Amino acid sequence: MAKIADRYFTTDPWYVIEEGFNPEYSQVAESVFSLGNEYMGLRGYFDEGYTGKSLTGNYFNGIYGRQEHTPSAYKGIADSTEFMVNAVNWIYTRIYAGDELLDLGKSSFSGFRRELDMKNGILSRSFIWTTSGGNKINLKFERFLSMKHVHIGAQRISITPLGFDGEIRIIAGLDFSEPHQSFGQNFWDCSDIKTDDGHLSILGTVKTTGQKLFSSCRFSGDFYDKLISQKEISVNEKAAAREFTVQLREGSETTFVRIASNLACQDMEGEAYQLFERQRSHSGEELKLLDYEVLKEENISWWNKVWNKSDIVIRGDELNQQGIRFCIFQMFQTYHGAKKGTNIGAKGLTGEAYSGNAFWDTEVYCLPFFIFNNPEAAKNLLIFRYVTLPEAKERAGSLDCKGAFYPIATISGRECCNLWQHASLQLQASTAVAYGIWFYEKITGDKEFLLEYGLPMLVEICRMLATRGSWTEGGKKYGYYCVMGPDEFQMMVNHNCYTNYMGRFTFNYTLKVLDELKNQASDSPTEVGRNLADKERSDELLHTMGLTADECSEWSRMADCMYIPYDNDTQLFEQHDGYFKLPHVDIGSIPVEDFPLYHHWSYDRIYRNDMIKQPDVLMVMLMFNASFAEETIRRNYEFYEPRCIHESSLSPSVHSILAAQIKKHAEAYEFFKFATRLDLDNYNRNAYEGLHTTSIAAAWMNIVYGFGGMRSDGSELSFSPSVPNGWDGYSFRISYRNNVIFVDVSRENVTFRTSDDTPVSVNVYGKPIVLGREAEIVPIPLEWRG
Amino acid sequence: MAKIADRYFTTDPWYVIEEGFNPEYSQVAESVFSLGNEYMGLRGYFDEGYTGKSLTGNYFNGIYGRQEHTPSAYKGIADSTEFMVNAVNWIYTRIYAGDELLDLGKSSFSGFRRELDMKNGILSRSFIWTTSGGNKINLKFERFLSMKHVHIGAQRISITPLGFDGEIRIIAGLDFSEPHQSFGQNFWDCSDIKTDDGHLSILGTVKTTGQKLFSSCRFSGDFYDKLISQKEISVNEKAAAREFTVQLREGSETTFVRIASNLACQDMEGEAYQLFERQRSHSGEELKLLDYEVLKEENISWWNKVWNKSDIVIRGDELNQQGIRFCIFQMFQTYHGAKKGTNIGAKGLTGEAYSGNAFWDTEVYCLPFFIFNNPEAAKNLLIFRYVTLPEAKERAGSLDCKGAFYPIATISGRECCNLWQHASLQLQASTAVAYGIWFYEKITGDKEFLLEYGLPMLVEICRMLATRGSWTEGGKKYGYYCVMGPDEFQMMVNHNCYTNYMGRFTFNYTLKVLDELKNQASDSPTEVGRNLADKERSDELLHTMGLTADECSEWSRMADCMYIPYDNDTQLFEQHDGYFKLPHVDIGSIPVEDFPLYHHWSYDRIYRNDMIKQPDVLMVMLMFNASFAEETIRRNYEFYEPRCIHESSLSPSVHSILAAQIKKHAEAYEFFKFATRLDLDNYNRNAYEGLHTTSIAAAWMNIVYGFGGMRSDGSELSFSPSVPNGWDGYSFRISYRNNVIFVDVSRENVTFRTSDDTPVSVNVYGKPIVLGREAEIVPIPLEWRG
Repeated sequence: MAKIADRYFTTDPWYVIEEGFNPEYSQVAESVFSLGNEYMGLRGYFDEGYTGKSLTGNYFNGIYGRQEHTPSAYKGIADSTEFMVNAVNWIYTRIYAGDELLDLGKSSFSGFRRELDMKNGILSRSFIWTTSGGNKINLKFERFLSMKHVHIGAQRISITPLGFDGEIRIIAGLDFSEPHQSFGQNFWDCSDIKTDDGHLSILGTVKTTGQKLFSSCRFSGDFYDKLISQKEISVNEKAAAREFTVQLREGSETTFVRIASNLACQDMEGEAYQLFERQRSHSGEELKLLDYEVLKEENISWWNKVWNKSDIVIRGDELNQQGIRFCIFQMFQTYHGAKKGTNIGAKGLTGEAYSGNAFWDTEVYCLPFFIFNNPEAAKNLLIFRYVTLPEAKERAGSLDCKGAFYPIATISGRECCNLWQHASLQLQASTAVAYGIWFYEKITGDKEFLLEYGLPMLVEICRMLATRGSWTEGGKKYGYYCVMGPDEFQMMVNHNCYTNYMGRFTFNYTLKVLDELKNQASDSPTEVGRNLADKERSDELLHTMGLTADECSEWSRMADCMYIPYDNDTQLFEQHDGYFKLPHVDIGSIPVEDFPLYHHWSYDRIYRNDMIKQPDVLMVMLMFNASFAEETIRRNYEFYEPRCIHESSLSPSVHSILAAQIKKHAEAYEFFKFATRLDLDNYNRNAYEGLHTTSIAAAWMNIVYGFGGMRSDGSELSFSPSVPNGWDGYSFRISYRNNVIFVDVSRENVTFRTSDDTPVSVNVYGKPIVLGREAEIVPIPLEWRG
Repeated sequence: MAKIADRYFTTDPWYVIEEGFNPEYSQVAESVFSLGNEYMGLRGYFDEGYTGKSLTGNYFNGIYGRQEHTPSAYKGIADSTEFMVNAVNWIYTRIYAGDELLDLGKSSFSGFRRELDMKNGILSRSFIWTTSGGNKINLKFERFLSMKHVHIGAQRISITPLGFDGEIRIIAGLDFSEPHQSFGQNFWDCSDIKTDDGHLSILGTVKTTGQKLFSSCRFSGDFYDKLISQKEISVNEKAAAREFTVQLREGSETTFVRIASNLACQDMEGEAYQLFERQRSHSGEELKLLDYEVLKEENISWWNKVWNKSDIVIRGDELNQQGIRFCIFQMFQTYHGAKKGTNIGAKGLTGEAYSGNAFWDTEVYCLPFFIFNNPEAAKNLLIFRYVTLPEAKERAGSLDCKGAFYPIATISGRECCNLWQHASLQLQASTAVAYGIWFYEKITGDKEFLLEYGLPMLVEICRMLATRGSWTEGGKKYGYYCVMGPDEFQMMVNHNCYTNYMGRFTFNYTLKVLDELKNQASDSPTEVGRNLADKERSDELLHTMGLTADECSEWSRMADCMYIPYDNDTQLFEQHDGYFKLPHVDIGSIPVEDFPLYHHWSYDRIYRNDMIKQPDVLMVMLMFNASFAEETIRRNYEFYEPRCIHESSLSPSVHSILAAQIKKHAEAYEFFKFATRLDLDNYNRNAYEGLHTTSIAAAWMNIVYGFGGMRSDGSELSFSPSVPNGWDGYSFRISYRNNVIFVDVSRENVTFRTSDDTPVSVNVYGKPIVLGREAEIVPIPLEWRG
């Protein structure tokens, strides 16, 4: 089952480089060279078109199509799916020399080089095209998406004829005709097509949802000075395009620049739509004011700030150095809190796999990264769950529960998972929201968020948990029956350790917040209380939620009686009631060709033994690390690790982090190995369909929580850094309460300092230390040296 | 949850009578007045057409369409469904007086009466039609399906004008254009349409499967003497029809007779197809030789033989008398062994619900009836499973098992169940085949069948059972994980009591048969051995199956270690491992409007408690009754009965039979109450979509096994009759080893006799008795008097 690298790109600490073009990797490269700015995503396909294998993918966060299913005879089974729909190709370009179309699938070319500059967020490409007549033309392409004005993207093409003068034709357009590849259909209706001299625009409407996308662009550059003619041209019925004929001069570079504005309207009612119409009517003027170089400078400065706050440096291991920067770069590309009410799809904005659906990966994989790098983005991710609370309440109703049941897979907040067994049995999307609120509040101390957004969600999740669970043994035990925990290889089980644990946590945390809120009017107000403007507001909050003392005391009783399967003698938590009695499978004996099991084993066979896909019990031990003794972690690790086949991409990171904690340093590195380069080296052989965006976040956790030994669930931050054998050292930095903590780990010492004067109390190797701007050097104890 | 009768038909011991026509009941009446002869089924719709609610249904056993699904990403999930397709309306008739079409949905009529004569198997209908001009015409319709020539059906229409002379037009046709109602589509391509003077014919081909149905008919009757004109007429593109104009004379009856031949070809390859083509080319001649009255007499005599061997008489309860005869009538209509290789759909040949699919109902509900009434039919039902062994082996392969995995729902032998959770987790279809073989062999002693057909199936089922199960506790326990037992309210459980018990039974029975076979060449040959012509044959059999001693000893070890969950203290069998720990639901507290639960409860909610749909443990206790002490049965009955909601229609009968055994006589009658009249009184309010054919068999078991107290699983037949309070007495008869045993139960005595001189040893109320032609009178012990 060992994963094997399929390395294609050149290693470099700051760039991803493709030297020479291999068509076999065309789609992998498209994914890896994807640009994104949360609002939109643009795969790294060739601007000028390409007849080889390609997914000309453009995706807009929250813009989706809907597919209806035959309604089920059973209640609570979703009857439609939503998918992020492939949208406008706004860099559509065709380049002709005479009648000859440039097409790297057919044309002759040399000196191909493509570079993703992660430091500055810019993708560039260059090559020399040799026409059939033997003329050589040097072409350079550059593109970026504005991080400041997220609906804006920019393209620059530079053309230099080598050793000849000649005419060239450039067709540039906005094209909605690309099919949504996974369905083989196009889902757009187009209207309002305009093709004025320097300005194109087109309005697209998603057929099944009515959502709108207004795309427009403006051309500039010195090609205008060399223009022979230009005209409107019809490329297809769903495109706006113009053709420019330009006179090129030998050795002289001509630049063609486009700035595009893509305005997406998710919600066709109320303010959002009005805003969209207003922006749309001003977009022509807006485009006139934007300048390529200014936008580019803004972007460079935006990315420099990111690296100042979030860079990870690995010394002596350039592969992982490039890999981890690629991960950090992708995280910020995918989401940085530009907009409330959107989420992160499993593939980000880089492909159609998983239909652009967001999973609970957001709260468990991605949120820790954002909390320690971009707390505002973390908050906005949680606000997505607040905005979609009505849908979660509706879903709870259809599952015969009160409160809110968050979807397993979603774009708009509605359940999009077609498999009832996942959609109806997995409670972890809901408890992950509670976990995310707790985590965010704990690290940021943002009580205002907690009251305004967090508490209403917590209360509704508790209501669901109080109606989905059951009492047994005459009211002595409470827990969840017929659930599927994060480990999807145990389908329909009772008292799943993770589910029950998270249920108890959610009740207890919510009750604690409520208690603090109620105490706000007392003589010695709590922190939550102090944060409230007045008692009136707290009363109103409680009143709105309709909470009674009886309801709270029921939750309290449920939390107290929550059954967590545990064996006192062995200190082992049982993954679910009866797990220890399951038939044992020696996973080492499963032939390599049986993987992935879903394709090679009969569906039901996967569920009939003690093999697990990812470790539920170890997951709890990572999330609530401070609650477990090291010896307990060691025992459970040693029991569950040999039973886990890691078909979930988070699984190796969980193992790596805990292995480091129990000083299995070699094993920790073994599990870390491909974390940073999962997509760069195409370990899963499916990078062509998009990046494993949410898994990417795990690579960050792997370094900060794993080797850095950071823990954030206790009363204060703690660190127990270790250094993998092959590394000279590494450093990382985290944002923490308006401060940045820098951690540099050499083979002998750990050096801490902060960006700000405010002292930060932390715990290092079990001892309290106060950090400040002055470097604090702590020698690494022997047992942590691996 | 009490079921309430919706009585519409007139009570009579031998007839089902409809006096006056209520359009509200039109489709219920169509189902109840369905005719069938195993080969084909004809709903009781009006010959002349009807614009009110109607399902013009004609079904042919084994003639089906196929629907393809989106292939699943997972292995072992069926990607197509087969459904018995609505076929030719071969009694198609339209009757015009002038331009006025007879249509009981619009016409004025009086004196409507419809009668199903169960004694003779004939359906008749009569009424007086008053035309808009005020003319009155007396119409009589009669129809039957030949039980001797199963592809033949007959229709007779008698027309008498009252008080006037006049012309009438009759259009008669063979019409393939009716839609398959549950899909709203027609699935036939038609060709070879011929409309000669006295003879119509048409060839239909099922679009998705290519199966063929050749329908032809011949007209006769004295209408020919009064014919003014006749002509070919085009009714639609998928029909062959002729129009006859006839001069009617006041007061004089004119008859119009049609004999139709419908030849169905299931298999388009090899001999079956050649036979079909041969029969088809001769059908014109065949029809010329057939006479309505002769066919009718043959049918009457066929049915008389049935009643002589299989009648049940209930004295003092005309409702149940009519009900039980309706059940027996339907059983013989649906199946009587005319053809090997077909099965019984859940709705017989009376409607489209359940897609005409056969379930394991055949082996557990229907087989006992046929074994004791028509052993040849029982054998043919089992041969269906032999014929479809290749499909069951293929299915096992797709489920990663060796051997044969029989489908949960099927027509052709392939799995047709769309719900993977049923299709992949239910092993009871396979073990029911083993049970059926055992039951049939036990009662009939048919060793030839056992060797030729039974053993190859048993071996392949054992191979499946040996690869689907798992060992636990270091090889100490064997059993089945992730199964759904007959009780479909506990979906994915381990060590289901029924499944494990049946697995053990199947291993043990197969090993016993194999042992007997191996001993055939020994000095003292066993019964199986004697039945073999020679050792060569037995060696060949064993060789063909490729059985090794190791394989058999593995089965033996699996049987020995099979885990049957049981609590010694309480004598309770646990329905599955962990069942006793499930949250308890007081099913009495579930509001009536929540039923049926599948429509009103969230799908997963059904599975989260100790509520059961039907009683797995009690089922085992009925099937292997002799293996359980009465006290054990009582305790388990008292535990499981209050947990059962009887959403399966077999469930009440199992309870009734066991309640009688443990002398809960009132309860036994309570559970029996609607068994015989489930469809006649439309208890489930869905008789309109077809009869509950397989449930009907349970009514028979309810009387013979329940009140008759017959047991057939011990070393000899035994009886412990009781009499329900309201009854004066009852009698039943069973075929047993070329003998018929008559059992008459009065309030005080039971009288036994046999049809034949061969003595039959039985056990009555625990005492051995030898039965013969002379009446044997046994007083009913007090405890059995209710």
